Amino acid sequence: MSSPGRLYGVGVGPGDPELMTLKAARLLAQAPVLAYFCKKGRRGHGRTIVEGYLKAGVIEEELAYPMTTEASPEEGAYCEALTGFYDEGAARLAGHLAAGRDVVVISEGDPFFYGSFMPIFHRLAPRFACDIVPGVTGMSGCWTRARTPITYGDDVLTVLPGTLGAEALKRKLAEADAAVIMKLGRNFAKVRGVLAELGLAERAIYVERGTMAGEKVMALPLADYEGAPYFAMILVPGRGRLL
Amino acid sequence: MSSPGRLYGVGVGPGDPELMTLKAARLLAQAPVLAYFCKKGRRGHGRTIVEGYLKAGVIEEELAYPMTTEASPEEGAYCEALTGFYDEGAARLAGHLAAGRDVVVISEGDPFFYGSFMPIFHRLAPRFACDIVPGVTGMSGCWTRARTPITYGDDVLTVLPGTLGAEALKRKLAEADAAVIMKLGRNFAKVRGVLAELGLAERAIYVERGTMAGEKVMALPLADYEGAPYFAMILVPGRGRLL
Repeated sequence: MSSPGRLYGVGVGPGDPELMTLKAARLLAQAPVLAYFCKKGRRGHGRTIVEGYLKAGVIEEELAYPMTTEASPEEGAYCEALTGFYDEGAARLAGHLAAGRDVVVISEGDPFFYGSFMPIFHRLAPRFACDIVPGVTGMSGCWTRARTPITYGDDVLTVLPGTLGAEALKRKLAEADAAVIMKLGRNFAKVRGVLAELGLAERAIYVERGTMAGEKVMALPLADYEGAPYFAMILVPGRGRLL
Repeated sequence: MSSPGRLYGVGVGPGDPELMTLKAARLLAQAPVLAYFCKKGRRGHGRTIVEGYLKAGVIEEELAYPMTTEASPEEGAYCEALTGFYDEGAARLAGHLAAGRDVVVISEGDPFFYGSFMPIFHRLAPRFACDIVPGVTGMSGCWTRARTPITYGDDVLTVLPGTLGAEALKRKLAEADAAVIMKLGRNFAKVRGVLAELGLAERAIYVERGTMAGEKVMALPLADYEGAPYFAMILVPGRGRLL
């Protein structure tokens, strides 16, 4: 019997394939099995990034989320469906590992920073050898493309999901020197309102698809802007001491 | 007359050279001039990372900080010395750029995230064409090596410098779901005290030289631990919903 394969959780960076690490590129070129998350019927950003870096004849395992719209995490049915989905995906990958095949699971950005890899890690790392490869985060890609240093000197950086309630957003933003607000989508108008109330709207920068085709970097759009996708971000750069 | 060179601010990642991006490696292999920051008499982590990736015959510009110990940024003499140091370094690099030579300035981690490149960017980007290449941050390297996802789902992440006062640290940590505390050094005992007061000491993980030779990952050391270097970090992982 062959010895079991190794599981790799590999960050592939913010979008531009050249922002992948050398280690990510090496592992992709060697891996007999590639797994990636995507929405049903879509290819997924991660899979698009690694095109051109894969081993010939690689076995691809698509992990397509069972829902296509943003659902509220408070909904029990949503959690149940997702748990089953991760269980099933982990079992599929465990089959390859048990048969002696290494598996690379890619994450956009960094696997341990809001990464889609985490549910797989928790299910499989106790059973199989597992390595993690960090990646350039989506937010680093966004502030780079905005040509805006995010933190100076002793600035405090707060990273917030736009899904938080307006009061919580306000309290946390008031304590921050610099901020990144992710998961915009249908939360955009609420987030913009809070920034305006705190006098931060003028300092804020909106970035969509940072480092990818179709990138947009602009001053904060109008409150009723309806184009913000879920993976757009708002940056509020710090104003720490600059020498 | 030749046309002016291009300035590149290039993140080289957390320490392991293989965690450099493909783009960083490509630019390093092409650049006729390499500039890096270091302490007087030391080589600097950044320079160590890029060894083995440089163009043959590259011209090296060492930018050695004029002070070797951590000084308080409130001291006027310290600010003045640093400002003069950055002015002088920028002028040296401007000489190469004006003569038509591209210059790569490396930053450990990501250039726009507490990066040493920022003072050079502000001085030279108005005068010369300039590109930034994001990198894997030191904190991503640390949580990866600690094998600890830092944020899940809707967790708020707060990144704090240990240089803050105890009261400010306490207030900001109380609002965070997950936290990274950087710049430890002589601030270690104070930071540890605040974490203990908030009941966070048991959850915290201490990481020194993450992804580098001599890496240490451990539970939070004793309050009187005197080994913490300035670039050590404490991680407080989030506890958001895990599916």
